[in-house]
Amino acid sequence: MKAALGIDYGTESARAVLVDCEDGGELGESVYADANGVIDERLPTPDDGIELEPDWALQDPDDYVRGLKEAVPRLLAETGVQAEDVVGVGIDFTSCTMLPTLADGTPLCRLDDLRHEPHAWVKLWKHHAAQPEADRINAVAAERGEAWLPRYGGKISSEWFFAKALQILDEAPAVYVRAERLIEACDWTVWQMTGAETRNACAAGYKAMWSKRDGFPPATYFATLDPRFAHVVDERMSGTLLPPGARAGGLCERAAAWTGLRAGTPVAAANVDFHASVPATTVTGPGTLVMIMGTSNGHLLLGEELAYVEGMCGVVEDGILPGYYGYEAGQSGLGDIYAWLVRTVGGSHDALAAEAARLRPGESGLLALDWWNGNRSVLVDADLRGLLVGMTLATTAPEIYRTLIEATAFGTRVIVEGFERAELPVGGIVACGGMPDRNPFLMQVFADVTGRKIAVAGSRQAPALGAAMFGAVAAGAAAGGHDSIDDAARAMAHLSDATYVPNAAHREVYDRLYAEYVRLHDLFGRGGDDVMRTLKRIQLGA
Amino acid sequence: MKAALGIDYGTESARAVLVDCEDGGELGESVYADANGVIDERLPTPDDGIELEPDWALQDPDDYVRGLKEAVPRLLAETGVQAEDVVGVGIDFTSCTMLPTLADGTPLCRLDDLRHEPHAWVKLWKHHAAQPEADRINAVAAERGEAWLPRYGGKISSEWFFAKALQILDEAPAVYVRAERLIEACDWTVWQMTGAETRNACAAGYKAMWSKRDGFPPATYFATLDPRFAHVVDERMSGTLLPPGARAGGLCERAAAWTGLRAGTPVAAANVDFHASVPATTVTGPGTLVMIMGTSNGHLLLGEELAYVEGMCGVVEDGILPGYYGYEAGQSGLGDIYAWLVRTVGGSHDALAAEAARLRPGESGLLALDWWNGNRSVLVDADLRGLLVGMTLATTAPEIYRTLIEATAFGTRVIVEGFERAELPVGGIVACGGMPDRNPFLMQVFADVTGRKIAVAGSRQAPALGAAMFGAVAAGAAAGGHDSIDDAARAMAHLSDATYVPNAAHREVYDRLYAEYVRLHDLFGRGGDDVMRTLKRIQLGA
Repeated sequence: MKAALGIDYGTESARAVLVDCEDGGELGESVYADANGVIDERLPTPDDGIELEPDWALQDPDDYVRGLKEAVPRLLAETGVQAEDVVGVGIDFTSCTMLPTLADGTPLCRLDDLRHEPHAWVKLWKHHAAQPEADRINAVAAERGEAWLPRYGGKISSEWFFAKALQILDEAPAVYVRAERLIEACDWTVWQMTGAETRNACAAGYKAMWSKRDGFPPATYFATLDPRFAHVVDERMSGTLLPPGARAGGLCERAAAWTGLRAGTPVAAANVDFHASVPATTVTGPGTLVMIMGTSNGHLLLGEELAYVEGMCGVVEDGILPGYYGYEAGQSGLGDIYAWLVRTVGGSHDALAAEAARLRPGESGLLALDWWNGNRSVLVDADLRGLLVGMTLATTAPEIYRTLIEATAFGTRVIVEGFERAELPVGGIVACGGMPDRNPFLMQVFADVTGRKIAVAGSRQAPALGAAMFGAVAAGAAAGGHDSIDDAARAMAHLSDATYVPNAAHREVYDRLYAEYVRLHDLFGRGGDDVMRTLKRIQLGA
Repeated sequence: MKAALGIDYGTESARAVLVDCEDGGELGESVYADANGVIDERLPTPDDGIELEPDWALQDPDDYVRGLKEAVPRLLAETGVQAEDVVGVGIDFTSCTMLPTLADGTPLCRLDDLRHEPHAWVKLWKHHAAQPEADRINAVAAERGEAWLPRYGGKISSEWFFAKALQILDEAPAVYVRAERLIEACDWTVWQMTGAETRNACAAGYKAMWSKRDGFPPATYFATLDPRFAHVVDERMSGTLLPPGARAGGLCERAAAWTGLRAGTPVAAANVDFHASVPATTVTGPGTLVMIMGTSNGHLLLGEELAYVEGMCGVVEDGILPGYYGYEAGQSGLGDIYAWLVRTVGGSHDALAAEAARLRPGESGLLALDWWNGNRSVLVDADLRGLLVGMTLATTAPEIYRTLIEATAFGTRVIVEGFERAELPVGGIVACGGMPDRNPFLMQVFADVTGRKIAVAGSRQAPALGAAMFGAVAAGAAAGGHDSIDDAARAMAHLSDATYVPNAAHREVYDRLYAEYVRLHDLFGRGGDDVMRTLKRIQLGA
C-alpha cells in the first residue's frame, strides 16, 4: 500500500489526510487547531497586545509549522502507515493569505523589532482593510487599459495579493522596506517543507494577476500606483511559477524531523483550496462545472480556450490543471445566507428545510435577490444587498427559507448561462464542500433550477484529497504515485451515490420565476435602479 | 349629571360606554361577546351546520340584539346611572356589514325555510367572497363612465354593499327575491331600537356609492349588471338618509324593555366606527388628519370643497360631519404587518420595539414597501405584495421591525401628500385606535416621517365615545345633551398628554429614504415593474 498525504490549511486549522494512492481510500485524518487562530482583535504578543483596526484579520505563520509538527506525526501514529509508504505530499491553502519575510524566509513577525507591528504578520484571506488600495489598483488599471483587468471581471478584490502588499507600503513603509520577500502563505509553507522558495501558478494567477502568457503586470503599472512599488515583483516575488502537480522539491531534513516523514519525500507545488478540489471531484477536463458549496459558493470550470466570460473572479492558464484554462466564478453568499435566516427567525436548519421541502415551486409567491453578502459573479459588486419581494400576512419562515435557496440557485444559473454564452458548455455539475451531503433538498432545487444533473463528490475532504492527489502526481507512478492528474483522478477520486436529476414540472415553474429573477437582477444590479447603493450611502451617513 | 350612551359594535363583540355629557368622563363600560362570533366555518344551526366556502364571514343579527339586552342593563347597574339621566344613545358599527330582511325587519336567517341558507345571514365586513361581483361592478362602471367611480379611487371593494347584494342575487336568487330589504347592520340595529327603518349617510356614502347631490347610482347602471338588479335601490333600500348626529327616533317600548332605558330616549342615526371616531378625537373641521391606527390604518380628513384626491376609499358630503366633505383613505396593513414580523421571528413587540428604538434612522440600510396586505391608498390594488431591500448578513430582526414601521409611515406620508396636492392641507395629525397608546416609538417615527406634530386622542374608546357624542347631539342641549357636534366635541372630547413633535435631524434622513420609497412605490405599484402580480399568478398556478 502506498499513500499520499494531503494537508488542507483552513481559516482556523490544518487538516492532514492520508489517502491510498490505488483507490483513494481515506486512511485517516488529523486536525491541528491553530493556537493563535484568526487574529482580529489584538496581536498575540503577551507583553502588550497591540489592538487591531476593524476589518483586519491576521494569522501566525508559526501555526503553519505547528500544523506540520503536530498533525502529521499523530496521523502516522494513528493510521500505522509507515513513513516509507508515504510517496508524496501536497498542501492546499486559503488564498490570498500572504506575509512579508526576509530573504531566507524568516517571517518579519518573528523579528524582535517588528513583532509589535501588525503589518509584519500574515494577512489572512478575509483581511478586508486594503479596500483603498484595491480601489487605487482598479482605477489605475482601468485608466491605463491594463490587459489583465478583463480576465478578473474588470475589478480585483481587496482580498488579493497586491492590495495587501500595497497596504503594507502605504501604512508601514518601514516594514515594506524590510520585506525582502512578499509571499503567499501556501508557498511559504512549501518553502519550509522543501527548504527552497517556489511559487504556484494557481495562487499567482487567481490572486496576483499573473498569466502564463504575460507574467505579472508591468513595472510601469506598479510605478503609477506608487514609485516605490514599481519593482515589487522583480525585487520581492519573482521566482519560477510551478503548475499544479509539479514537484516543488523534496522534504528537507528539518521538515522530515518535524513530520516523521522521510527526507526527500516529493512535495507538490502548493495549491488554493477551492482549486485543489476540482480533480478530487473526478473532474479533469471541460464540460463539467465544479461547485464548492459552503458559506459561499465557488464555481470552477475548465476550458480549452481563453474566453472572456462576464464577471469571472479570474481565468488562469494552468491555474487548476495543466493544459487548461481554469475559470473561477463565485457567489459571495450561500450557506451564510441560510444561516442568517435561521439566526433571524430561530429554529433549526433541519426543521426549516423539512417544511420548505413540502412546498411546491412558486407556491409561496416569493422571490429574492441573493445578495446578502454582495454579488461576486457576474456583477462583481460588493455593495449590492439582499432583496425579498412578495410577502403577505400569510408568509411563513419556511417559505422564506425556500426562497433564499431558490435565489442562490438562480444566481448559479446566471453564472452557468454566462459560461454557455461564452461557448463554455456546462453539461453537468459536481458539487463538493460542506453543504451537499447534509442538504438533499437544497441540491434538488439547484438541479431543478439549473436544469443540470448534479453529482456529489464522494469525499467530504475534497481539498485535502486533491492536495494528496497532487502529492501523488509529484511522486510519479514509478514511486507508487501517478504520472498525471488524470490517472490520479481515475484511481483516487469518486462520486457519492447521491445524484440529483432535474424535475421537469419544477423546471417549468422555475423558468418563469427565473425570468423575474433575471429582470430584477439586471434592474438592481446593472445600474437601472440604484436603491441598494443609496441605502448604503445613507447607512454610512454619506 | 347627564350621560350619553355609545355602543360600539365590533367584529366579535358589542361594547357599551356611558359618558358624562358635560366633561366627557367615561362612567363605565360593559362588553357583550357575540355568542356566535364570526361565522366563517359553518352556520350556527345545530341540526346540520352548513359548511361555508373560503372567504366567507357572517354574523348572527340576534347577537346585536343580545348586545343591547346584556351590555346595557349591566352597564346601568354597575355605574348606578339612572335611566332618566341617559339623555341619548348612539351606535357605531363595522361596515359594510349587511343583511337581507323582510319588510318588517325580520332577518331572513330567522325564517325556518331560509336559516340553512348562508346568503340569508349577515355578511360581515370581512366577507371576501364577492370579488367576482366587485370586478363586474367596477368594469361596468368604468365602461359607462359612471360619475361616482372617481370618488372611490376608481375602484370599489368586494367588501362593499352592492358587491355583497349582487352576490346574493348571483348565487341565491331565491333569497334575493325574499329580501324585501337589504340593509346595513347598523341601520338594522337602529331600526330594532326605534321601531322605524332609517338609513345613515355615512355607510351609504362610503359603502354604497350614495352622494348627497346625486343619490345612488341610476337604475340603468344596475340593470347593466343584471336586469333583475335594476331596481335594487327603489325596491329594497330607499328611505331617508340621515346625516351624522340626526335623531333617528326615540327608543321604542320593546327596546326600552331590553335595555332598561326609558322609552322615547333619543337615538342617533347610526355611524361607521372609523368615522364616528373623528369628533371623539376633538376634530370637527378641516386641516387636521385623523388616523385610526389598529391592524390597518384609516385616514379621515374634512374639507370644505369636493376635490378629487388620488386613491381615496371615498369622499362623502355629510359623511363624517354635517356641512363637510369627509375624505377617507387607508392603509390595508399596519399593526398586522408588525404582528407578522413578531410571529415570523419570535420574541415580543416590546422587545423588538425597544431594540428598534435604539437605532438611528437609516442605520440599518433597509427599506420596505408596506404592502403585505395590498395597498388601499393611493394605489387601490389588493394584489400588491410586500418588499424588503438592503439586507446583509448583519441585518437583525429589530432592524426589520423598525423598517416595517418606517415603511407604514412612508405610506401615510404618500396619503398626506396626496391630500395636499388636492389642496386639502394637513396641518397636524390626531391618532386614535389600538396602537398609539402602546407604541410611543411608532408614533415618533410617524411624526418624523410625515413632518407633522401628532396628538393622541384622550379616549381609548374613540368609536364608542363618538357614538355617545352623536347620541348627545340627537338629544339636544335642552335635554342635557348638545346642540351641535362642535359643542359636543368641545365638552366631551379630549387629547391625551402625549404629543409627538418631528425631530429635524431624523426628518432629514427620512426625506432621503422617502425619496427612495416613492420611487420603488411608483415602480412596483404603477405598472413599471409587474413582479408582484406575476408572482401571484405563478402562485395561483395561472
